Amino acid sequence: MGAKGLTIGVFDSGFGGLTVLRELLPLVPGSHFVYLGDTARLPYGSKSRETIVRYALSSARFLQQRGAQLLVVACNTATALALDELREALPIPVVGVIQPGAEAAADACREQGPGHREQGTTAGVLVLATQATIESHAYARACAALGLKATEKACPLLVPLVEEGWIGEDGDAARASVTAQVLRIYLGEALRDAPESRALLLGCTHYPLLRPAIERTLVELGRPLRVIDSAQATARVVARVLSENGIARGGLAGVCEANGALAEVGEATCEFFATDSVRKFERLGSRFLGRPVGKVQLVDLGG
Amino acid sequence: MGAKGLTIGVFDSGFGGLTVLRELLPLVPGSHFVYLGDTARLPYGSKSRETIVRYALSSARFLQQRGAQLLVVACNTATALALDELREALPIPVVGVIQPGAEAAADACREQGPGHREQGTTAGVLVLATQATIESHAYARACAALGLKATEKACPLLVPLVEEGWIGEDGDAARASVTAQVLRIYLGEALRDAPESRALLLGCTHYPLLRPAIERTLVELGRPLRVIDSAQATARVVARVLSENGIARGGLAGVCEANGALAEVGEATCEFFATDSVRKFERLGSRFLGRPVGKVQLVDLGG
Repeated sequence: MGAKGLTIGVFDSGFGGLTVLRELLPLVPGSHFVYLGDTARLPYGSKSRETIVRYALSSARFLQQRGAQLLVVACNTATALALDELREALPIPVVGVIQPGAEAAADACREQGPGHREQGTTAGVLVLATQATIESHAYARACAALGLKATEKACPLLVPLVEEGWIGEDGDAARASVTAQVLRIYLGEALRDAPESRALLLGCTHYPLLRPAIERTLVELGRPLRVIDSAQATARVVARVLSENGIARGGLAGVCEANGALAEVGEATCEFFATDSVRKFERLGSRFLGRPVGKVQLVDLGG
Repeated sequence: MGAKGLTIGVFDSGFGGLTVLRELLPLVPGSHFVYLGDTARLPYGSKSRETIVRYALSSARFLQQRGAQLLVVACNTATALALDELREALPIPVVGVIQPGAEAAADACREQGPGHREQGTTAGVLVLATQATIESHAYARACAALGLKATEKACPLLVPLVEEGWIGEDGDAARASVTAQVLRIYLGEALRDAPESRALLLGCTHYPLLRPAIERTLVELGRPLRVIDSAQATARVVARVLSENGIARGGLAGVCEANGALAEVGEATCEFFATDSVRKFERLGSRFLGRPVGKVQLVDLGG
């Protein structure tokens, strides 16, 4: 636990989880965040359940050893394949990104009114995610429990396109047009299979960086669905879990006092760890966090 | 050591090394091949030197424990970053793919005559590879030692495109056109930087599957360079190393006799291991090997 108060562990296979941390920072002030990117073993999304569970457990245990009192699994693949195992193995609350994402999608469909249901069809959400997340059907189950039909579409090339920065932010039109063409293929196929979809859920923490390109493609395809990003929804759930566990903002002083370090509820602080090249993390991480990442420490999880 | 005779270990981060094994099979008959795809930790090409060395050493040690008497590092990234460490750690001959590739490129440039050199420029080769291979400059050094100027171009998206099968072999024109567009970007940039190039070297074992698309793109760009694939060159070097170590075809019977198993010099046999999903390996592997892979065994290297 950091001197400033409550310590929250956040992990992802790489940089994508920084989009979740970005939403957490303003919502859980006064906390200390320990972020781990398991970059030596990324990507998780193309690998098997057994391997993902093993990687997720070792990442989570590292964060617990660093003092995490709550764990955020800021990775859709790890949440989809390993959330139960993580909850069983760890004595601290564990929050994933799938349930919050499904709830946000259900809210969005409700806000758009009963419409389709009255016409005899079920409101649906289109979920884009990695191969492993899609094959787990974790989103379909979470959505079904909320009365929402999910159509799931694996989009394996989107993570490498984002990691390579072919998203147009540097003004490179030729590279951005490759990403646009890939999105037209994936979204075109998915929308043909899901005519009743009323919202699109970004089921991978890399995808928020593609949000403008995805929204443009939806307009081009004549289906301007509302796009839901689970990062914000997850941050809200974290705040709620802290409150339920008596360690939210109100209870924070108490926790800090008990630990002999009564902190001011000021800006959150962050520590970053990566299992591979810290230079690459420092370079790419800021794109996901929306501000400089600063110093990153290398950690060996034995992989 | 298998009952049939000499055992040769071959490893790659994934499936790409199967393009090297494909060339080895007819050239080193009567041998037993043990192939390891370190699929739980792939890709190597985007990771740091330290991580790649660690992964390569554990993969190589596994193959040695399985009886390998010679190791083929059928991965450009592992060869570029870890060949010295592998040779130091293992008591058996270790063959990588970079030196054979550079020699094949030098031969190809020589066959095309002195041409450019007479006009005052140096013959050059354009090398396409992963980020880690390019950053190591292993190809530039190997080529320079042969009097050849190498221009190196990192092509990080080609491995995911091949792994996803967006190479047009299934007749999907939309997906194939994405790969074509990516190749136009990479090759266009590389050729602008290397006007003296007379050959193009495929510096990643995934790239032979893109060879037809690469050759089409070179024609489109008005620069139909000769394309060199290091897999064949590597297979020839393996045959030479076996001969130098007295365990080539002629010496094979002796080796087998010494081991109490005088084998006929018949077809090579293969065993396959993977560190992640064997189903995926069985499904994708045949595309690289050019024939069914058959049963694959799962192995845990502790990653």
